[in-house]
Amino acid sequence: MTSFVLRELADFLKAELRGDGDVVIRRINTLKAAQAGDISFLASDAYRRFLPNTRASAVILRPADLDAHAGNVLIHPDPYVAYARLTSLFSGPDESVNGGGVHPSAVIHPDAKIAGDALVGPHVVVEAEAEIGPRVRIGPGCVVGRGSVLGADCALMANITLYHGVSIGERVRIHSGTVIGADGFGFANDSGHWVKIHQLGGVVIGNDVEIGACTTIDRGALGDTVIGNGVIIDNQVQIAHNVRIGDYSALAGCAAVAGSTVIGRHCMLAGGAGLVGHIELCDGVTVTARSMITGSITKPGVYSSGTGFDENGNWRKNAVRFSQLDNLARRIRALELTKTK
Amino acid sequence: MTSFVLRELADFLKAELRGDGDVVIRRINTLKAAQAGDISFLASDAYRRFLPNTRASAVILRPADLDAHAGNVLIHPDPYVAYARLTSLFSGPDESVNGGGVHPSAVIHPDAKIAGDALVGPHVVVEAEAEIGPRVRIGPGCVVGRGSVLGADCALMANITLYHGVSIGERVRIHSGTVIGADGFGFANDSGHWVKIHQLGGVVIGNDVEIGACTTIDRGALGDTVIGNGVIIDNQVQIAHNVRIGDYSALAGCAAVAGSTVIGRHCMLAGGAGLVGHIELCDGVTVTARSMITGSITKPGVYSSGTGFDENGNWRKNAVRFSQLDNLARRIRALELTKTK
Amino acid sequence: MTSFVLRELADFLKAELRGDGDVVIRRINTLKAAQAGDISFLASDAYRRFLPNTRASAVILRPADLDAHAGNVLIHPDPYVAYARLTSLFSGPDESVNGGGVHPSAVIHPDAKIAGDALVGPHVVVEAEAEIGPRVRIGPGCVVGRGSVLGADCALMANITLYHGVSIGERVRIHSGTVIGADGFGFANDSGHWVKIHQLGGVVIGNDVEIGACTTIDRGALGDTVIGNGVIIDNQVQIAHNVRIGDYSALAGCAAVAGSTVIGRHCMLAGGAGLVGHIELCDGVTVTARSMITGSITKPGVYSSGTGFDENGNWRKNAVRFSQLDNLARRIRALELTKTK
Repeated sequence: MTSFVLRELADFLKAELRGDGDVVIRRINTLKAAQAGDISFLASDAYRRFLPNTRASAVILRPADLDAHAGNVLIHPDPYVAYARLTSLFSGPDESVNGGGVHPSAVIHPDAKIAGDALVGPHVVVEAEAEIGPRVRIGPGCVVGRGSVLGADCALMANITLYHGVSIGERVRIHSGTVIGADGFGFANDSGHWVKIHQLGGVVIGNDVEIGACTTIDRGALGDTVIGNGVIIDNQVQIAHNVRIGDYSALAGCAAVAGSTVIGRHCMLAGGAGLVGHIELCDGVTVTARSMITGSITKPGVYSSGTGFDENGNWRKNAVRFSQLDNLARRIRALELTKTK
Repeated sequence: MTSFVLRELADFLKAELRGDGDVVIRRINTLKAAQAGDISFLASDAYRRFLPNTRASAVILRPADLDAHAGNVLIHPDPYVAYARLTSLFSGPDESVNGGGVHPSAVIHPDAKIAGDALVGPHVVVEAEAEIGPRVRIGPGCVVGRGSVLGADCALMANITLYHGVSIGERVRIHSGTVIGADGFGFANDSGHWVKIHQLGGVVIGNDVEIGACTTIDRGALGDTVIGNGVIIDNQVQIAHNVRIGDYSALAGCAAVAGSTVIGRHCMLAGGAGLVGHIELCDGVTVTARSMITGSITKPGVYSSGTGFDENGNWRKNAVRFSQLDNLARRIRALELTKTK
Repeated sequence: MTSFVLRELADFLKAELRGDGDVVIRRINTLKAAQAGDISFLASDAYRRFLPNTRASAVILRPADLDAHAGNVLIHPDPYVAYARLTSLFSGPDESVNGGGVHPSAVIHPDAKIAGDALVGPHVVVEAEAEIGPRVRIGPGCVVGRGSVLGADCALMANITLYHGVSIGERVRIHSGTVIGADGFGFANDSGHWVKIHQLGGVVIGNDVEIGACTTIDRGALGDTVIGNGVIIDNQVQIAHNVRIGDYSALAGCAAVAGSTVIGRHCMLAGGAGLVGHIELCDGVTVTARSMITGSITKPGVYSSGTGFDENGNWRKNAVRFSQLDNLARRIRALELTKTK
């Protein structure tokens, strides 16, 4: 079982230590649930009420909060970031049924290049001309298509499919069930019948990207679909052909982006947010949960659509009135005109 | 081909039989489509009009409906429940390419424990310290992560991924493409860059749970994500880290629940319903299709959001007015004040 | 590398050629990005501004646009359809790690029938009584359930799951991660507990259908779920049990259709559109992105729901008023009554 003394954690975080540097820390926990041997943190005022009675052996605090706690403290300007960094110490190794190297059940095309220290799990398939970089780990059942590239230190969990011509940078982590490089949804309508537009572009993903489970990122129709550096993408996100996402943007679960839309840097799509195709979001745009954006946004800020929720009976009464809104507005105008006569 | 005489079905359902107990029943069918050899049921007034002309060899009826049908009848207080129970008799065996035991192409870590009567299909991977209970069936291409546990009589269809530290009770049925235990979407923002919060919790799923296809249930950040007993979950549902779902709740297709939200017992999320994070729904809450819940609900009942649908031209006119609603409301107030002067 | 002379492309498209039939074409590209060796097309007025400065070696134009370009031209009544047809010439072969035939790692039940010229990739499983037609290609990790049928020239990418009793026509193309034939979400509620309704129907899919990645199509409860000929379905689409979709309809990404709903021919569901269960859409209905349809539609046309988007501060003010809409409407009526007194 992983354990550290508090002084080691202070050194790792470059945090100032107050109290007993020799206390043993075995786990990270919330202020409320913490027991002896746990380290906790105060990152939000919402949890301040749990600080006085926490049993944690140490707490990470901002300098301004030091007086609020008598026990062992690591002093850090951003305890939430400090917590994030600490989690890397307490996370177990990624599982692997094979002791190392390429599992004998994997099927590797002779023209694929695989770094000597890459780990390739059972039942993996790597197609011709694919390149697997140093220290890459590929979990069971993954498929890497023809000519696709995984840069150094990438990690693919299980049952992931990369089509051909998918280029992925370094330190990219992809979760199970995700499909990258499937055909974009391109069809021309010829007298009522759909004619497939074969998707001739690829997918280019930057460095330090994380992609969740059962997410789909389609290949481009002519040019590429492009995901920038440091982008984070959650589960069941749909990214259509020729979308471009700027560096350090975040897309939460079930967000969906239609074809050719361009998202700037440092944007955030909350859960289920949707963007129609062929629009552009400037840097620094946040879209709230389940909101649907139907036009370009040129000013950083927070954007929303939809209605609030209500008890169904009330909601029905108001929803009926929504269908009369233009009529109601005209009647208000008429009343105003009457008044001024 | 499966067949029964009606008396056997009456015994199975503990239903009273009226008519010919020796008639042979080979299939369940709707009142409208039924032919000789079929049994049908009247579960809703919407289908009552098909009763007079049904060709079914027998019909399951409530006692109050007995006079409406002259043919063979099974009398049951809840014909829809009776129908549900009967389907188990007419369902074929789950397919399996292997005659039994562990398929030779499966890759099983020597430290995994697999019950002698479990069936493990082709190309399955079971990691170290995983435990597979009695009579469990694992379909082709599934991956069971390190230390994960499947209780007795669980059934995993094909191409399912369970990460490490996923604990599943008994009689749980999981459909293909589903991913359980992937990392929750946790990141701290450090000067514009995302720092990963390694997800140190697990997933705990109770007994008698059914989970649909391509659904994702993330592992907890510090504590566990918890699904209660008897919960039913449809396809493409997203359940984020540290969500807790109470016993016997139902989540229909494409429902999504953001992080740390707590759902009570006997709740129902209709298709595409969404819950933001860090809220709580008491027992007995129903959310209608595609509704978005942005705050806690403390009173059982039915809740909704959104608007009705309309022909696009009308809808546009009304949608424009939505963006003027506050202005319209203020103008109504002004008119009222004028009137009372 | 693929290359053609322009005359060959004119012949392929049955298009009239103006200019140099011997010019070599190596790629299709947009008017804006095209270089020498590329062919481009003008399909929409939005791109007309790029025509004067395009470097393309040839452009596909409508007869009416001929005067707008001095270079080599293929004349076609619908340049977008012509572009779509051309892409088939420039698309590489689908990858396959196996030189042909059935890969030795595939597990094929002795009672399955596989055409001699079908390609079956690594780690595929084909269950008993399945039938794989001529020239079918099945990618790595796919599972074809008991008694399922794939007609001639179908292509399954990787990690696709077909359950038992799924019947698929000819020339159907299915993308990775998709699951067809999982159980519909059918349960009867017996005193608060859910009783599973085993799903006894199957799935029937017509000819010339394309299905995207991570899409789910459930089997029917009693009868079948039915997808017509020439239907196109994008990624992450959810189609519930007993849905019927008419020929040549299109469902874009994240569209969702609840149980027993019937969609006519030539319908279009834009991205994220949703249909509740047990309704019917006539032929020729288009539903705009993210719109939710809660009742049957009997007249062809375009339908929508939801609100526009706005800066969050404005949106909040208006959303609050939505919850007062019925009250506001009554106050307008009261003002009107006062006025007429």
